Amino acid sequence: MVELLFKRLVIIGIGHIGASIARTLQTVPGVVETLVISDTSPAHLKRAQELGLGAEYFADPGEAVKGADGVILCTPVGSFAAIAEAIAPHLTKGCILSDVGSTKQSVLRDVGPHVPPGVSFVPAHPLAGTEFSGPDAGLADLFQGRWCLLTPDETAAPEAVKKIEALWTALGARTAKMTPAHHDRVIAIVSHLPHLIAFTICGTADDLADETRDEVLQFAASGFRDFTRIAASDPVMWRDIFINNKDALLEMFSRFSEDAQAMARAVRWNDTAYIEDKINRSRKIRKSLIDLKQA
Amino acid sequence: MVELLFKRLVIIGIGHIGASIARTLQTVPGVVETLVISDTSPAHLKRAQELGLGAEYFADPGEAVKGADGVILCTPVGSFAAIAEAIAPHLTKGCILSDVGSTKQSVLRDVGPHVPPGVSFVPAHPLAGTEFSGPDAGLADLFQGRWCLLTPDETAAPEAVKKIEALWTALGARTAKMTPAHHDRVIAIVSHLPHLIAFTICGTADDLADETRDEVLQFAASGFRDFTRIAASDPVMWRDIFINNKDALLEMFSRFSEDAQAMARAVRWNDTAYIEDKINRSRKIRKSLIDLKQA
Repeated sequence: MVELLFKRLVIIGIGHIGASIARTLQTVPGVVETLVISDTSPAHLKRAQELGLGAEYFADPGEAVKGADGVILCTPVGSFAAIAEAIAPHLTKGCILSDVGSTKQSVLRDVGPHVPPGVSFVPAHPLAGTEFSGPDAGLADLFQGRWCLLTPDETAAPEAVKKIEALWTALGARTAKMTPAHHDRVIAIVSHLPHLIAFTICGTADDLADETRDEVLQFAASGFRDFTRIAASDPVMWRDIFINNKDALLEMFSRFSEDAQAMARAVRWNDTAYIEDKINRSRKIRKSLIDLKQA
Repeated sequence: MVELLFKRLVIIGIGHIGASIARTLQTVPGVVETLVISDTSPAHLKRAQELGLGAEYFADPGEAVKGADGVILCTPVGSFAAIAEAIAPHLTKGCILSDVGSTKQSVLRDVGPHVPPGVSFVPAHPLAGTEFSGPDAGLADLFQGRWCLLTPDETAAPEAVKKIEALWTALGARTAKMTPAHHDRVIAIVSHLPHLIAFTICGTADDLADETRDEVLQFAASGFRDFTRIAASDPVMWRDIFINNKDALLEMFSRFSEDAQAMARAVRWNDTAYIEDKINRSRKIRKSLIDLKQA
């Protein structure tokens, strides 16, 4: 028995995540009555229309949110402040505002002050995504079994939080709540730092002398190949994430750098016990992940 | 038309790569007449026998190589010197000695001095492998379409090099030749450094306060999950690789560290142009890899 959660739900930004929400909603009809899509990129909006991702399409987010009972920001987090300011005067009382951004303290900072009275803001972050971008990258099973983290503060109405939880459950995800600060630290180590490292090592390889560089590409073994997969992600989205989770990211980077220097030192001085111990710990973490069904 | 390459081929060390060679040879009957398996681990040798990976089984590598026209070292590279010394008196004139080690200067250094007159040493390195270990991890399609790099020096007979090339072609791989020093630099950046980083970041996460650590495991997003996959690899094998490709690995690590520090500095100072430029370069490398069919 499917429960109607939103009569008029607006997705602002029809990229990989927005399009995946739209695609998934098509597989669970009845959860949303009318899906409205807004994107300031004419090309994305046109493509979303061609793909039939929604029922109505608006270039202007302010127009799109009129009369909506749900709005989800799916653009890069750096654009949230301007969008929140633009849509605020058009939000209907009782509307629930949410997002899918990968940084949560910055989202509260940027969106919070613009949320009008009578509107609940329920920040959310689905831990899902591939390296692909744009409306064509929408996947109907992207959120299946994945976590969606909610970081509402005390200003959000409990019913609003329940509704966003129910939406993500309908989309196939498992939900959990935490504080924005805690979210940002956890995600800094599991997602943001690995991306920073992956982007970096690709550049390091690209800077090698020309002759070696060609061979780096030609003989990319499994380690490097995995790194390039996550390094193929969207530049604007990740630039915004890094800048907007700076404190947690730089702290995790600093911890990682110390540990990597210690490992390099162990290699230099043939400290085999140290190296084996670190690799054995990695294997244990991998095993824990498999036990927790995240791998 | 299958060509008989070896009448009696010995695999020393029946782990992931050795067992994959054995499994693949079963799919191309006629390339090797008798496959002999040797492993100093009684458990591995017994398991290989249960799996029917070879025709004959020996605990003692010296016994195993008697009368063989081909021998492939498939143990961790740190064991090569002792094994080469042990088998040298038992190698038959005309035998071809090869290996699958991930470091090639160290292999020439450790094995080269023990190679008796009349025996050709043709070092090889298949760029393939998963995070799994042991005789049960043998895969019949592991080398399909992957590169196998050969680093013979002028002491190897041209016919011996051709035979090892033909063996890897029969196993499904593409072959290329390069110098050991060049091999070690290329593989340091595409494989060894990514593994060092992956082992390290798992430890960094594991060192976080207990509360965060559980959530790191629980909410491992895609970035971290990819890292833990390669971090699950065999500790002794990787310890040996790091120690035996120390110079190239530490140089690549040093380059990477400088680049990572520069990226962190750009994040700290909101240098969005720098960050975007680096991410865009990563994407280009990814695209090149896809064009080269390595991804």
